Amino acid sequence: MPTKSPVIIDLKFDQEQVAAALKGAFPDREVINLLHPASRNRDLSGIDYAVVWKPGADLFSRAKDLKVVFSGGAGVDHVLTLPGLPDVPLVRFVDPSLTTRMSEWVALQCLLHLRQHRAYEAQRQKRVWRELAQPEAKEFTIGIMGFGVLGQDAAAKLKTLGFNVIGWSKSGRKVEGFETYDENGLDAFLAKTDILVGLLPLTPETKGIFNTGLFTRLSRKGPFGAPVFVNGGRGGSQVEADIVASLNDGTLHGASLDVFEQEPLPLESPLWSMDKAFLTPHAAAASDVGALFRHVGEQIERLESGKPLEYLVDRSAGY
Amino acid sequence: MPTKSPVIIDLKFDQEQVAAALKGAFPDREVINLLHPASRNRDLSGIDYAVVWKPGADLFSRAKDLKVVFSGGAGVDHVLTLPGLPDVPLVRFVDPSLTTRMSEWVALQCLLHLRQHRAYEAQRQKRVWRELAQPEAKEFTIGIMGFGVLGQDAAAKLKTLGFNVIGWSKSGRKVEGFETYDENGLDAFLAKTDILVGLLPLTPETKGIFNTGLFTRLSRKGPFGAPVFVNGGRGGSQVEADIVASLNDGTLHGASLDVFEQEPLPLESPLWSMDKAFLTPHAAAASDVGALFRHVGEQIERLESGKPLEYLVDRSAGY
Repeated sequence: MPTKSPVIIDLKFDQEQVAAALKGAFPDREVINLLHPASRNRDLSGIDYAVVWKPGADLFSRAKDLKVVFSGGAGVDHVLTLPGLPDVPLVRFVDPSLTTRMSEWVALQCLLHLRQHRAYEAQRQKRVWRELAQPEAKEFTIGIMGFGVLGQDAAAKLKTLGFNVIGWSKSGRKVEGFETYDENGLDAFLAKTDILVGLLPLTPETKGIFNTGLFTRLSRKGPFGAPVFVNGGRGGSQVEADIVASLNDGTLHGASLDVFEQEPLPLESPLWSMDKAFLTPHAAAASDVGALFRHVGEQIERLESGKPLEYLVDRSAGY
Repeated sequence: MPTKSPVIIDLKFDQEQVAAALKGAFPDREVINLLHPASRNRDLSGIDYAVVWKPGADLFSRAKDLKVVFSGGAGVDHVLTLPGLPDVPLVRFVDPSLTTRMSEWVALQCLLHLRQHRAYEAQRQKRVWRELAQPEAKEFTIGIMGFGVLGQDAAAKLKTLGFNVIGWSKSGRKVEGFETYDENGLDAFLAKTDILVGLLPLTPETKGIFNTGLFTRLSRKGPFGAPVFVNGGRGGSQVEADIVASLNDGTLHGASLDVFEQEPLPLESPLWSMDKAFLTPHAAAASDVGALFRHVGEQIERLESGKPLEYLVDRSAGY
């Protein structure tokens, strides 16, 4: 039996978590963790596989013979823009854990806005006992932009909680139980949306899509009289100066952001101190590194036993 | 056709909401709103129906001929303890809107604790960008005490969000899809519970049931190492001094309270300023007054057309 190709690991994750997850992973082949100092000068030619998240700029010039590149996350924008990316299959990380974590975050954010949590917290701090007029979930339509695995899971859960949910994707992907819209239906979709949830991949087409021009096309007929913007996708899809201005001038009623144009969010960003915004530090859906390695192992096994790879990225679409 | 009996309204609710909801309600009979000054000296004898929430102490001595008393809320403890309550059918308010609102509140509270919202808010205020280790919903078992209409609706929604959910009721009511426990199974139920959700009616048996003795029997094996207590039921079921002490000494990891022993919560309560507690002012599931009057109208129509009343309170059980 020929020796099995090693796997290159180049993940800008917490290295303790990576080390813990690597124990027992890929039992039948060598693992080369590029973040380990011993790997600095290692010859990477002849190696088939690399698992990457924001990899080193010289990775692809050193590993010239890669047959498959695995993204360490659901998004692949950090890989597609790398100079020297070889023309080989690129596999996305799809993980039930990542999906359910994202839906937890999205459901929490929608409920925080619905139930006026910030206002109640402010009252609590002043020891004020006052019940606010409270609309119900069914009085809101949540529009989800990006209606793939993540968007559909969040949609089903939000619907169970009582919200109306509609979906938008470039292709207008049909999903049973939900009204969906395509590229040409964007205006109609936005006009119905009281809470906009962004779960879009970052592509040249989605860069900066969440801007004032889009926010002003959202519904103002909902119970709060102005829409809420929730982004769990990619920071590059939003224009933060527009979010700040829209929160300040009432174009937006509120916002929840897990992703930012620049991460970590710069200290001088006005978002940090905005009463109308909830922020988390790109923590909505952390990849479970153990699950990532199991997923990569399964795909390698499929390939080596002659089966097609799953979760392939369509490079022309960018996701 | 004989004249239809008037309906007495004695609801200590927001009177603007009551007035708005009364427009068009009970079109075929007189409405006597006791909170209206004109009703002060009105003769209430011979009247069949009263809709009450914390009614006046003299209501039952003035309205001696009541045939049915309707509670203005899901709970009836405020009625059962009234001196002079006549021995007539007492009807609870069951309303889909009240149920879904309570489930929104319960889901929000469970997600706030799960996703470490208070810690992230504290980081945001200091402009700290740091991802916290994040367990998943499926690593938590939520135990719901009170597994009637409200408890079961919350259970289904929490399960959809990924939590494990178990139920407790005095009778051990069986509910498909959930492990349930009865009076004798309380210890086993508590030992499995990482997040305890109280949705109990207030009865002599549930008075003060949520105390240190009970908190120490909850699971400490969950991801946070200590349990969380969420109460959306009745304040009289909890011992607030014990909640404060348990949060301070680590018996409890966190708490969410919508109800209190005394409402409004007294200004001097230490709960107001506890970092580990989320508070709302008995606002989890406000009764929709319009829905209440529709419900009362339907039940009166049933009675007058010879059908049995629904949602009758079992006085010996206290709910």
